[in-house]
Amino acid sequence: MSIPQRIERALEAAIAGCEARGGPPRLGAAMRHAVFPGGARVRPQLCLAVAAACGDDVPPLADAAAAAIELLHCASLVHDDLPCFDDAPMRRGLPSVHARYGERIAVLAGDGLIVLAFDLLAAAADAPVPGTGTGTARTAAACRRLPALLRVLAARVGVPFGIVAGQAWECEDWVALPDYQRAKTGSLFAAAAEMGALAAGGQPSRWREFGEHLGEAYQVADDIRDVAADAQWLGKPVGRDHKLGRPNAVAEMGMTAALAHFDALLQRSAEAVPAGPGATGLRALLHAEAERLLPPALVGRCRAPQARSAA
Amino acid sequence: MSIPQRIERALEAAIAGCEARGGPPRLGAAMRHAVFPGGARVRPQLCLAVAAACGDDVPPLADAAAAAIELLHCASLVHDDLPCFDDAPMRRGLPSVHARYGERIAVLAGDGLIVLAFDLLAAAADAPVPGTGTGTARTAAACRRLPALLRVLAARVGVPFGIVAGQAWECEDWVALPDYQRAKTGSLFAAAAEMGALAAGGQPSRWREFGEHLGEAYQVADDIRDVAADAQWLGKPVGRDHKLGRPNAVAEMGMTAALAHFDALLQRSAEAVPAGPGATGLRALLHAEAERLLPPALVGRCRAPQARSAA
Repeated sequence: MSIPQRIERALEAAIAGCEARGGPPRLGAAMRHAVFPGGARVRPQLCLAVAAACGDDVPPLADAAAAAIELLHCASLVHDDLPCFDDAPMRRGLPSVHARYGERIAVLAGDGLIVLAFDLLAAAADAPVPGTGTGTARTAAACRRLPALLRVLAARVGVPFGIVAGQAWECEDWVALPDYQRAKTGSLFAAAAEMGALAAGGQPSRWREFGEHLGEAYQVADDIRDVAADAQWLGKPVGRDHKLGRPNAVAEMGMTAALAHFDALLQRSAEAVPAGPGATGLRALLHAEAERLLPPALVGRCRAPQARSAA
Repeated sequence: MSIPQRIERALEAAIAGCEARGGPPRLGAAMRHAVFPGGARVRPQLCLAVAAACGDDVPPLADAAAAAIELLHCASLVHDDLPCFDDAPMRRGLPSVHARYGERIAVLAGDGLIVLAFDLLAAAADAPVPGTGTGTARTAAACRRLPALLRVLAARVGVPFGIVAGQAWECEDWVALPDYQRAKTGSLFAAAAEMGALAAGGQPSRWREFGEHLGEAYQVADDIRDVAADAQWLGKPVGRDHKLGRPNAVAEMGMTAALAHFDALLQRSAEAVPAGPGATGLRALLHAEAERLLPPALVGRCRAPQARSAA
């Protein structure tokens, strides 16, 4: 089964459990709307790519880690889109969750997705692994790895340094742009890389730097798109950072410097990939991301990491 | 150390971690405001009382379970108080979190508290137990018990049957009052009892019924107070259910029947206490709760469980 298939299957099973008979139907529908159809699923792909590079010896645990990260990403989007934050009417070309289901259900859908993410990891450690013939040994490995997986996830999502804290920096009078970007976006990319390693019994510290640089690059690209893309290509309104008074790398350093910064962050991310069987695949993922993240007219102004490492 | 002291110490350590240098200061302050000064802490007290009845062989794990439940209760209050739900200006006699810190920080403080709750449990399983001399064995027991603790907590908080789902029933066109009350309040009381048992290596199923009935009784008492108490005694506005069109037991069945229902639920809870060394203490806790929960003028109209079981 391909990595995208594994991700969608894990997410589908998780959301289906929230739509069980006897629960509030609009809340289940809102949680589904928050998760499907997905965006690029770049964080769970990163997680499973790192797990593969580390041997991926307990695939259900890696799948749970990948899905948990995506659920938390979706939860943050639902809450960020709320009227009190970005008041975003659209997300991924469709009405945002609060636009379709109302603000109250959107708050609760975000809450439910956060809880579900932690439940997925616990379920992977609690349940026997079907069809492996080594279910017990693998479940024992999942149990041993569970506390560290949970702690990394909580640290990269929660307070004081995770994505929730990153969003809160928008409510403070002053924040350094790198601190804000590291918390708001870098931290969940770091979690994706670290948790991919942990789920497969690898060393998370080797992968954290890789994920963090990639996440910061992703945030800079987001800032560039907010200034330079058109709304139809992007599937959501542009110019939001300026309108909402949020920090933006292009506003702070100019477009040329922002593109160079994006390029440097991708390069640092590529250099942080530990040597091993998965290194080539991960660098290819970075190359593809660089092309996907920028508005088409700007791709030529950025040297992708493969090109530079070949230079 | 007394049970209240254990609860406050665990909560204090958890919140202090969120106020670390380098994080957004207003968010950390808002999380503290959501948790301190506390209410009656009835859920974590219930958790530790059940743990004690089951032997309490890993106190740090029971403390983490109790604090996790209280953090999730506080998170639900912060989000329930938001302008889009109850728009409550006061909580426990002080400004609500959004009234003091703004709506955005209140959304994020709730999110942060949810994440923190799961982190506490993971930390208790990951960390050695200080000063026990049997740290390793106890940590191994904590690790073994962690998946079930997490799954129970997620089920009782999340979707489709936990407190998040309970709150969402307020957004549906129709809901049966017992389903709503079971999810909105009963479920977290059930979690408190089940997790107290699980943290001490006991059987959660024996304790679930006890917690669930107590939780439903608590919700009925909340409905009674909303109709019959005065705002100063309660520390928050009264008459909110009617104003907000929410289900209320007194509105549905009348005051006399609501008091009888409260009485019956406490009685069923008392009867569900498994025989053992902790049974007397737990029944005393129920007795004290019955007196504390009702407006003073109504206490005489309700037979407390001890009185009835002595009859």
